Amino acid sequence: MSNNKKMVDAITARDADFAQWYTDLCLKAELMDYSDVKGFIIYRPYGYAIWEGIQQDLDRRLKETGHQNVYMPLVIPESLFQKEKDHVEGFAPETAIITTTGVEELAERLIVRPTSETLFCTHYQKIVNSYRDLPKLYNQWCSVVRWEKTTRPFLRGKEFLWQEGHTVHSTEDEARKETLDILEIYKKLGKELLAIPFVTGKKTEKEKFAGAVDTYSIEALMHDGQALQSGTTHYFGQEFAKAFEIKFTDADNQQQYAYQTSWGVSTRLIGAVIMVHGDDEGLVLPPYVAPIQVVIIPIQSQKEVVQQATQNLFDSLKKAGYRVSVDDSNKSAGWKFSEYEMKGVPVRIEIGPRDLENNEVTLVTRHNRTKHVMKIDQVLTSLPNILKDMHDAMYNKAVAHVESNTYQAQTYDEFKEYIKKGGYVAMSISGEEAEIQIKKDTTATARVIPFDQTLITEICPVTHNPATQTVWFARAY
Amino acid sequence: MSNNKKMVDAITARDADFAQWYTDLCLKAELMDYSDVKGFIIYRPYGYAIWEGIQQDLDRRLKETGHQNVYMPLVIPESLFQKEKDHVEGFAPETAIITTTGVEELAERLIVRPTSETLFCTHYQKIVNSYRDLPKLYNQWCSVVRWEKTTRPFLRGKEFLWQEGHTVHSTEDEARKETLDILEIYKKLGKELLAIPFVTGKKTEKEKFAGAVDTYSIEALMHDGQALQSGTTHYFGQEFAKAFEIKFTDADNQQQYAYQTSWGVSTRLIGAVIMVHGDDEGLVLPPYVAPIQVVIIPIQSQKEVVQQATQNLFDSLKKAGYRVSVDDSNKSAGWKFSEYEMKGVPVRIEIGPRDLENNEVTLVTRHNRTKHVMKIDQVLTSLPNILKDMHDAMYNKAVAHVESNTYQAQTYDEFKEYIKKGGYVAMSISGEEAEIQIKKDTTATARVIPFDQTLITEICPVTHNPATQTVWFARAY
Repeated sequence: MSNNKKMVDAITARDADFAQWYTDLCLKAELMDYSDVKGFIIYRPYGYAIWEGIQQDLDRRLKETGHQNVYMPLVIPESLFQKEKDHVEGFAPETAIITTTGVEELAERLIVRPTSETLFCTHYQKIVNSYRDLPKLYNQWCSVVRWEKTTRPFLRGKEFLWQEGHTVHSTEDEARKETLDILEIYKKLGKELLAIPFVTGKKTEKEKFAGAVDTYSIEALMHDGQALQSGTTHYFGQEFAKAFEIKFTDADNQQQYAYQTSWGVSTRLIGAVIMVHGDDEGLVLPPYVAPIQVVIIPIQSQKEVVQQATQNLFDSLKKAGYRVSVDDSNKSAGWKFSEYEMKGVPVRIEIGPRDLENNEVTLVTRHNRTKHVMKIDQVLTSLPNILKDMHDAMYNKAVAHVESNTYQAQTYDEFKEYIKKGGYVAMSISGEEAEIQIKKDTTATARVIPFDQTLITEICPVTHNPATQTVWFARAY
Repeated sequence: MSNNKKMVDAITARDADFAQWYTDLCLKAELMDYSDVKGFIIYRPYGYAIWEGIQQDLDRRLKETGHQNVYMPLVIPESLFQKEKDHVEGFAPETAIITTTGVEELAERLIVRPTSETLFCTHYQKIVNSYRDLPKLYNQWCSVVRWEKTTRPFLRGKEFLWQEGHTVHSTEDEARKETLDILEIYKKLGKELLAIPFVTGKKTEKEKFAGAVDTYSIEALMHDGQALQSGTTHYFGQEFAKAFEIKFTDADNQQQYAYQTSWGVSTRLIGAVIMVHGDDEGLVLPPYVAPIQVVIIPIQSQKEVVQQATQNLFDSLKKAGYRVSVDDSNKSAGWKFSEYEMKGVPVRIEIGPRDLENNEVTLVTRHNRTKHVMKIDQVLTSLPNILKDMHDAMYNKAVAHVESNTYQAQTYDEFKEYIKKGGYVAMSISGEEAEIQIKKDTTATARVIPFDQTLITEICPVTHNPATQTVWFARAY
């Protein structure tokens, strides 16, 4: 087991230095690499495959609910970008700007899209004329650029991959419903694919998107007790429609401004998966999104009987649609066990000559590192339940982590104490004045205003003014 | 039929003005729209869905042959871009350059990737150490930017969508084999998905990629007799490996430079589909890539029996995995027939009360606009053959078009006469001097040097020097 130890030693212990553990994992599990430009990362095959898994799942959910994919240009003329006042104020400082080609200066500077509201709006202005044209439910998968100062792999980059949905509706009700329907789809993606329980709710005025009337968010709680905003949906009302003149003729032949939404999740979800599920041995990937669900490791693979059993099992799992691979390289079994544990592969199957005498193999589940000896011809039929149980166990563990790290504060002292421990702290506050004070004192920020509202205290413990709403706070990435 | 006529009238006749016909179709079939920046287009849902069909098919072929997807940064530091001499000379004039953010000038200018050889090479330099690490077979789906002067939707844009494969091998043989294997995959994509017979061969020295040792191409012949280079594969030898220090230790423990390839197809393939198959009524989409394969049009859709039959047929086709839609809007049947013909939907099924009395429907195949009256319960079982026959007929028609428009020239006068007609003209030439003269005299360019080489004449009809190779020429997009 010396090889095994060596591999694991290469990763910082999770509770010793969570940030370093995270970076170590990103690199050693070969999810990504740094490029020559700070903040721009290389998505390596194993990391990109996780993103492809997320894309495939979410794309299906969006298409089933009537959304269509489009692709908008990479660049936005500076004059167009400036059309919606709040929006440009929010994004202008972090834009990257193309000013020249290899041959000549451009007549107008071009912003590399940090988000595409302005492009969608310009297009919608042209193609939306009648209520019969509505709703328009468009989505695009692309990369965007935001010149962030502090960057971390997957969590915050100068470039990241995402989907951005942009929809147009004829009524406020329908647009508001879309905003919440998508939030629900994101929540399901978390529960059913990523084994992450997202907490949902509305953002405070201070934390909402530049240009939105209301912003909603899915928040995940990392192992270290910090929250990660993992996706947002925005209700725009008619603000962008007015700035971009998106009008339609209603059923009564009257001109009206349209109602809009936008929403997105990004490769940040990969960061959430790492930090919610990972442990000291490395990644723990939820089975339905794992690029490799089963790795088969033949022991004494020079033996014909082992080779044959390995090939047969591989073929049957592959045929059944599992993402399965075999490692018959000449590295030691210990090295391989450690390597695939680090890579978070949900199921490892060891096939050795001794077990085979009884037609048995050893199956190890990554999330609890438990060995199951089973008949080789039962692997295929057992696998659906094994993966489902694993998924459920991971989800339930994450739910328990949220539950045991969510507090209600009656006083500001209590609040500060809880925030120090890590996790969500609910407190009833008077408004933005309290929010600003809290951030200043504790670095905690308002994560969401939960949908289910009950006041914990009548008076805001921070400002001593009447409390108006209960808000969940946390330190956040 | 007045509505019908009106729709078709909106498109320029194909043989009257092919270029205008093409542009009309791109816009009226709602494949794309122009954006505010010349040369950057909006891929609308119907156009983007064709691209998704191509992506899905090719991605499967690439994964089946061991290729893995990655994602490299959008930007290349200018100093990195300049590392391979021929490559930078080829691309520098058409690069778009980020020089500043919203806040400050950048210390180093960043090129928006026109292609990603330099990024892949930098990464490979880091991760390739031993022959055991090879081959590396990476691919990425992304958009690239090239500041082209003359742009046309899908054919040539300042931004386009593509896949770019970049591979590293330990031997020349293996890298050369990869270059040709991918060419074969592209050819199959044409034959099996797009119903396009690609002519393949090597590019001349003059036409090859900036930095390549050898470039191979798939060429398609458009309806107007002009050729369209539809994809390329490049063998790089060790040129990039030397510029970027990509070395590995071989089995004998010797350091060697690696051998590389790159290859790509782009949204230009959408242009090829339009110009190979389209007719005066509009698009004709090959059935396996068509975003809508079957459109059901209920006639007198207020009648219960029609509604029920429509719903049943829709459900059964949908369940069987067909991409099917129903148009029960209150537009006239004539308008709908014309609209879906223009959009190139392969199969239209009309369900009316009179036909239903005999349990019949009318099925119209787009490519030959032929009506088939059939029992409604035979539609599902007949559809596989209907689509296959349609695909084969479209492919065979395109093959016949290539065959009847491919000539052999014994003299330069003959050559000029054929080129005027349109199509491919094979001629045996002495070399680059002849190629340059031909382009000057006729605007025709060397498309490919076919793999099967026989000299047509011993002497080059252009230079009167000994002929060295037979080259296919054409006017090209």
